[in-house]
Amino acid sequence: MKLEHPTQIDRPSLATLERHDAFAERHIGPDSAEQREMLAALGFASRDALIDAVIPAGIRRRDALPLGPFAQPKSEAEALAALRKLADKNQVFRTYIGQGYYGTHTPAVILRNVLENPAWYTAYTPYQPEISQGRLEALLNYQQMITDLTGLAISNASMLDEATSAAEAMTLVHRVGKPKSNVFFVADDVLPQTIEVVRTRAEPLDIEVKVGPASDAAHANAFGVLLQYPGANGDVRDYRALAEAVHADGGHVIAAADLLALTLLTPPGEWGADVAIGNSQRFGVPLGFGGPHAAYLAVRDAFKRQMPGRLVGVTVDAQGKHALRLALQTREQHIRREKATSNICTAQALLAIMASMYAVYHGPAGLRGIAQRVARMTAILAAGLRKLGYPIVNASFFDTLTLTSGAHTDALHAAAAARRLNLRAIDAQTVGVSIDETTTRADLLDLWSAFAEAANVDALVASDIDAFDADAQDGFDATLRRETPFLTHPVFNRHHSEHEMLRYLRGLADKDLALDRTMIPLGSCTMKLNATSEMLPVTWPEFADIHPFAPASQTVGYRELVSQLEAMLVAATGYAAVSLQPNAGSQGEYAGLLVIRKYHASRGEGHRDVCLIPASAHGTNPASAQMAAMRVVVVACDANGNVDIDDLRAKAAEHAERLAAIMITYPSTHGVFEQNVREICDVVHAHGGQVYVDGANMNAMVGLSAPGQFGGDVSHLNLHKTFCIPHGGGGPGVGPIGVGAHLAPFLPNQVSTGYVRGEHGIGAVSAAPYGSAAILPISWMYIAMMGASGLQAATENAILSANYVAKRLSPHFPVLYSGPGGLVAHECIIDLRPIKESSGISVDDVAKRLMDFGFHAPTMSFPVPGTLMIEPTESEPKIELDRFVEAMTAIRDEIRAVEEGRADREDNPLRHAPHTAAVVTANDWAHAYTREQAAYPVASLHTNKYWPPVGRADNAYGDRNLFCSCIPVSDYAAD
Amino acid sequence: MKLEHPTQIDRPSLATLERHDAFAERHIGPDSAEQREMLAALGFASRDALIDAVIPAGIRRRDALPLGPFAQPKSEAEALAALRKLADKNQVFRTYIGQGYYGTHTPAVILRNVLENPAWYTAYTPYQPEISQGRLEALLNYQQMITDLTGLAISNASMLDEATSAAEAMTLVHRVGKPKSNVFFVADDVLPQTIEVVRTRAEPLDIEVKVGPASDAAHANAFGVLLQYPGANGDVRDYRALAEAVHADGGHVIAAADLLALTLLTPPGEWGADVAIGNSQRFGVPLGFGGPHAAYLAVRDAFKRQMPGRLVGVTVDAQGKHALRLALQTREQHIRREKATSNICTAQALLAIMASMYAVYHGPAGLRGIAQRVARMTAILAAGLRKLGYPIVNASFFDTLTLTSGAHTDALHAAAAARRLNLRAIDAQTVGVSIDETTTRADLLDLWSAFAEAANVDALVASDIDAFDADAQDGFDATLRRETPFLTHPVFNRHHSEHEMLRYLRGLADKDLALDRTMIPLGSCTMKLNATSEMLPVTWPEFADIHPFAPASQTVGYRELVSQLEAMLVAATGYAAVSLQPNAGSQGEYAGLLVIRKYHASRGEGHRDVCLIPASAHGTNPASAQMAAMRVVVVACDANGNVDIDDLRAKAAEHAERLAAIMITYPSTHGVFEQNVREICDVVHAHGGQVYVDGANMNAMVGLSAPGQFGGDVSHLNLHKTFCIPHGGGGPGVGPIGVGAHLAPFLPNQVSTGYVRGEHGIGAVSAAPYGSAAILPISWMYIAMMGASGLQAATENAILSANYVAKRLSPHFPVLYSGPGGLVAHECIIDLRPIKESSGISVDDVAKRLMDFGFHAPTMSFPVPGTLMIEPTESEPKIELDRFVEAMTAIRDEIRAVEEGRADREDNPLRHAPHTAAVVTANDWAHAYTREQAAYPVASLHTNKYWPPVGRADNAYGDRNLFCSCIPVSDYAAD
Repeated sequence: MKLEHPTQIDRPSLATLERHDAFAERHIGPDSAEQREMLAALGFASRDALIDAVIPAGIRRRDALPLGPFAQPKSEAEALAALRKLADKNQVFRTYIGQGYYGTHTPAVILRNVLENPAWYTAYTPYQPEISQGRLEALLNYQQMITDLTGLAISNASMLDEATSAAEAMTLVHRVGKPKSNVFFVADDVLPQTIEVVRTRAEPLDIEVKVGPASDAAHANAFGVLLQYPGANGDVRDYRALAEAVHADGGHVIAAADLLALTLLTPPGEWGADVAIGNSQRFGVPLGFGGPHAAYLAVRDAFKRQMPGRLVGVTVDAQGKHALRLALQTREQHIRREKATSNICTAQALLAIMASMYAVYHGPAGLRGIAQRVARMTAILAAGLRKLGYPIVNASFFDTLTLTSGAHTDALHAAAAARRLNLRAIDAQTVGVSIDETTTRADLLDLWSAFAEAANVDALVASDIDAFDADAQDGFDATLRRETPFLTHPVFNRHHSEHEMLRYLRGLADKDLALDRTMIPLGSCTMKLNATSEMLPVTWPEFADIHPFAPASQTVGYRELVSQLEAMLVAATGYAAVSLQPNAGSQGEYAGLLVIRKYHASRGEGHRDVCLIPASAHGTNPASAQMAAMRVVVVACDANGNVDIDDLRAKAAEHAERLAAIMITYPSTHGVFEQNVREICDVVHAHGGQVYVDGANMNAMVGLSAPGQFGGDVSHLNLHKTFCIPHGGGGPGVGPIGVGAHLAPFLPNQVSTGYVRGEHGIGAVSAAPYGSAAILPISWMYIAMMGASGLQAATENAILSANYVAKRLSPHFPVLYSGPGGLVAHECIIDLRPIKESSGISVDDVAKRLMDFGFHAPTMSFPVPGTLMIEPTESEPKIELDRFVEAMTAIRDEIRAVEEGRADREDNPLRHAPHTAAVVTANDWAHAYTREQAAYPVASLHTNKYWPPVGRADNAYGDRNLFCSCIPVSDYAAD
Repeated sequence: MKLEHPTQIDRPSLATLERHDAFAERHIGPDSAEQREMLAALGFASRDALIDAVIPAGIRRRDALPLGPFAQPKSEAEALAALRKLADKNQVFRTYIGQGYYGTHTPAVILRNVLENPAWYTAYTPYQPEISQGRLEALLNYQQMITDLTGLAISNASMLDEATSAAEAMTLVHRVGKPKSNVFFVADDVLPQTIEVVRTRAEPLDIEVKVGPASDAAHANAFGVLLQYPGANGDVRDYRALAEAVHADGGHVIAAADLLALTLLTPPGEWGADVAIGNSQRFGVPLGFGGPHAAYLAVRDAFKRQMPGRLVGVTVDAQGKHALRLALQTREQHIRREKATSNICTAQALLAIMASMYAVYHGPAGLRGIAQRVARMTAILAAGLRKLGYPIVNASFFDTLTLTSGAHTDALHAAAAARRLNLRAIDAQTVGVSIDETTTRADLLDLWSAFAEAANVDALVASDIDAFDADAQDGFDATLRRETPFLTHPVFNRHHSEHEMLRYLRGLADKDLALDRTMIPLGSCTMKLNATSEMLPVTWPEFADIHPFAPASQTVGYRELVSQLEAMLVAATGYAAVSLQPNAGSQGEYAGLLVIRKYHASRGEGHRDVCLIPASAHGTNPASAQMAAMRVVVVACDANGNVDIDDLRAKAAEHAERLAAIMITYPSTHGVFEQNVREICDVVHAHGGQVYVDGANMNAMVGLSAPGQFGGDVSHLNLHKTFCIPHGGGGPGVGPIGVGAHLAPFLPNQVSTGYVRGEHGIGAVSAAPYGSAAILPISWMYIAMMGASGLQAATENAILSANYVAKRLSPHFPVLYSGPGGLVAHECIIDLRPIKESSGISVDDVAKRLMDFGFHAPTMSFPVPGTLMIEPTESEPKIELDRFVEAMTAIRDEIRAVEEGRADREDNPLRHAPHTAAVVTANDWAHAYTREQAAYPVASLHTNKYWPPVGRADNAYGDRNLFCSCIPVSDYAAD
């Protein structure tokens, strides 16, 4: 046997051998031979020919992606080395800045086995509960932790950050109350970034935000009051009387509460708060320059059906056993659209899971011990600082001291910097110090020495610590001591050894299907590869351990990364400027609409408030428009799912005076490149409106077309879709916006932290200046490794794979909507309505049956009820595409058996899917089909079989019997 | 509801709140309440009381562990910070030293999902094949890769390092040939460390090692010849004629071959080598200061039953489907004892898996491309160096150049150091440069600039690279070009996209049971927690990226770590000195015996060669003794499994003249603290012998007793048992030895690399100076985090848990052997022989049935046939111990049903275990027991069920039909 290409003949140049472009081949699933096969199946001679046929010439990008220094791809090692240089420009100081962000020890077992484990981070949002029981349980633990600590009845499964959570709480109490006023009162010791975001969100809603001393709240005639507990300056105050007064005044009370403090303090639910919000970052989630972290929102029982965000609840499965699933989905914007309670879609699942696991691992006694240590350290620090001559401003404290540093202030900051530690710079006379879990005796000595040096007094010594310890008193009043137990459920009391914790994490992960085991062909969600090299930098200390309000001199690397990534996204979108602040797609949409709103106002056209939205739009669009105080006017779609251009013309003309914007998705949510998108843009522009292009489908455009080039004025991008940030089981997301030059002055800013984009900025839309900064390296790495050629190849392959799947499925299922030549964009919709007619088999049945084949279902009934939308993405290998086609074909055969009467209409493997191992191995088997048909419908499953842990979940039962806490052990026993 | 302990009362000091000792609670499974429960079950009031009853007062350690600065435990964060300081004392230079160790890019997907993933690293050796199919497949891929690349018929599943593999190859050809001589000829361009280890191993066996020019080999009258391919100086020579001549002379040829080079060069199997050995480090395994890496050994078909080490082979399971398992186990020392072919036990499974996955991910074309790039870079480098005036010594090359640097030599090394790069320092006139996968154009320019500066000539520039590239020729003769394809099996051609690779890794991991899912109660193997914080530092670049022969100035941190760990182990063992060089327990045993041998020789008593070994000893003991040229004399054990002291006296007296040593295990392999161990030591000492205490059971002694204090002269320790290095699915192991002061001068050294312990050292026993240095941080972290109190608590809990399990099992299974009070040490043996009598159910049946319960079986039939030896270790949570007891109790009930005739003697769930999902879900079920009994014998399995992927493997069939390559796809289809 001889080699086909012996060395003599095969003589590549060094440049070829270097393989700077090697990553693209790792990222893109099908190799070149497989791509040729797929093209042949479609009848195209080349990828170019296919793309020419798919993308309308009129919008085709003709320039190469202008990525500048990133146009040439870097190998994985090269990109990591380049990013390492940026990381090294950050400086990791110990942080005492506090202000909602604290040092924390991420337990190593959680770091490695959650944050760094693809079984957790590549999972999708648990909309398919049967294959998501692991992360649903983790999120239920999160809810239990929040309700226990806050003393409120019910919590959701996380919010984006503390500031947006406060804003959501504001609108919630606005909704549920019978407001006698539009005043929202915010105590002046609420965190500054929270106040800013609340102001941004209040403005379009005509809510007046009043900021003042908490004691004024009772007489503010406010529909809602926001208090910080403990306050930003450190004070721990008793709000019982105040809450009563607010209630008497007809208002509701929102407490922004620190979870660690709540292990020692009377919980807000016990002193009268109606809603509690806050951040769970300090429960083991790295600082990450501000995010992503999971915030929380908990409410009294009466408000539970008003809560924004996702809520995990308990229900029963087809066998009557416990099953978890997302509850009250009917609240969500994809059902209620502009009547939704919020536009929140993605939450912070991965980070909420980490925080919940931190509580599982430490347990109630462990958490309390940490809090006690923090409080004690603070008391000792206070004693020392008093001795050094620094007056303490706050009368009470848990972990934070506000100090009068007076004339020593500058010297103090200099002395701190010399020791590589950061204090909170409050003003020229005042500094703050916040203690956290990581603070040690050595740190106290270092802090004291900085204060001593600044005041030019003798330093304190190690033995002072024990002396102060002996005399230390609690920093808060005894009446505020927590007396109710918390985290009493066994889950928080059983997993304290590392082995047990490791096994708990593995056991939960094994219940779930994520990208590490199967493709997740979710239309509009772009579940593509999250490459390991992209993930590695996230946990580098130089990125993970930076406080969002650290001095700029310490964050040079981060800010270079941000500006490079902004430039990359500018190149990809064709816009003039990008803001990375919005920390989810929904936030990007909202921010984009605010930018449009502000633009109109700047031109004296503030009355423009009509937002045209095609009928096929994603539900977030109308929900966001509503939040931005726009009136939604629906534009019809034609039979092919395209915008009905005549209806658009009519609506635009009808509303010309007040036309603010149109929100379109491109390629359309029907998975087609509409031919007339330029015309749509022109019509709207002609009537004075701006064009918002939803970037959800950007994966079909990068390198081939650009919304900024064909008429868009604003787009948000989902970095967790197109740019490889993992979905994390339902978050984090990142939703930056790109805008045309005329809109750039209005991009988000954050005055209090100096993140200023333009003098006319819309204000802050998230708590941290750069949103979820810690995960931006993922997208940076992706773009740097792909380069211009790789990104374009990815887009082309996404389109190729979608068309290949569509073609192969089309003999079995009709493909709805296509462009000229019967081609689709990067996803395809198959129509199951005829099957429902002929066999009674529903979309749901097919989706659940796919689980038996080891697949996550495609997107169900969006944008068209009774259909499945399939998006394979470029990174799925051909072998996986073929496995999916095989499964769908086998399912079609099962349906045909029903149609032809060979199988019972009720008793068939589709209606009873998914099949658990317990069901298929039960002694009794009463079905009309066989066990093997149930479990192993295709032979390849014998190599690798996933078993759904529960049968089909009963959503209606769960919503009728809402239960959103950990399941009592006695109930489990009954299973 | 009120807290039991409100804050007022509960007022711990800061010192308590700091929790420096928190790690011990994470490591030790049962918490203090559970420990009390367990003690109560045993009838003891305290742990102290239990320990007093278990450990003979005469050997009880009375001092606290003298750990010096490490006596106080450190928290995980503190220990990581302290280790980080050590790491920062290492300097990561780019390395061009070569000499068997090369820079490599570990593919990130392999780094994260194998090396950093507990599903892989916590697995045990695949002795139970049905629950090890994933790693067996990975190792089979390794074997296929080696046979493909070397052109030989069969490869084992890895060796410890290249040097010991060469030594094993020497003894192999010594065995299989009909030696007309005792001469082993080694070419003078074999790697120096290999020559040293070969010399060490040859000496006791009376093999004469001759080193000379390869061309002399044909006339050396040698039974074996060792050649390096390419040679250490870089030369790539055609050995066809030489091999023929050696064969004609009756000798055998061993090729030490570089795997990457073999993708371009004629494989040794094609030019006449009988055996090939080498290292697979450069296939994606970090340098790690010398190890661990997987070496290989491949042979002609005729020698396959003579191979040392582990061999994976294909067989069939109970359903007739393919199953993998370790083949030819009868060769191994646990069966053949002193007649074994080698004492190798642990191999380098985890590293072999990594290397095999590197080949899977790159595939044949990818590997070849890497090799071509390396070769081209070398050619370009050579052209540049010639132009700079440096004569190249080697006439041919693949990746290595030897250069005459003459008078510039010192300046050259200085110029290199200034650029943070290392050349190979050969002598005062000569340097070496080896190129590897990581070398870039920038590196070439840097290299040239150092050479130019040293010679004071003009530097070369970037454009020179392309110019040299255009003219570059292969560095070796065209007749040596490889012409046979390799890695043609689909497994090497299917997983080149990251998604497919990730899923392949996950799919394999899911087939296996490791510590991340279940306890592995293996007696004598101490499968305890491998804590994440211990594992984190292993992949820090400051530990991972250091060449073993880097200048001492760059390895300060490593050497401090080594000396600190040595001191820790001195403290734990009570000896005077420790060597960390042996890279497995077997190597430690061997080194320890050599030390004894050399000690006797130094006193003029070189004739002492009798080694007493109790009948109950682990099989490695006699195999090691044989390798050290000792005559094994077996000492009887009494009915309780203890050494028969009378027989010992008799044997010692009988052999007094020639008595060299006794090898005992303490506590004994029967899991008991023998009361008379001091007496045993005294008897041996009285007759001039030395006492070797096998440290396999050190986990029962740390902090409570010390072999160096009760009479031992030498012990090896298994860091992968007692000191938390993970088993990695069958390696790496680390087997340091501790010795008394009188033996310290004889500890291993390695003259060529300057690792000198004493002038009388036994020489090198492994290739790298500190053996498997890269994983020593694991044990360092463990000891630093536990401190003296934690280590002692761990030992006490190991004993407590073993006694608890023994007590709870004793109503169901008789516990063999115990000390006074019916107590055991850290493991217990249960006797299944009566059950075999009464029911026909064998140990094997019970072991396989445990798989259906999700457990790895205990150690089978060692030290007593028909028994199970259970070692729970201290880190198993009580919940897991109870789950195990529940399983064993349920199994006993199943056996009772057979005994009582309620179940069939053949058709019962034990005989047919393990049950695959395919079997239990099959349409047909013909068994006398139910499907539910088969799959879910206890209710807790419904929460978490592991399915064995294959039925019971047929060992005999596989050995009769030996097949040790990847399974052809056509065969899989037949399954």
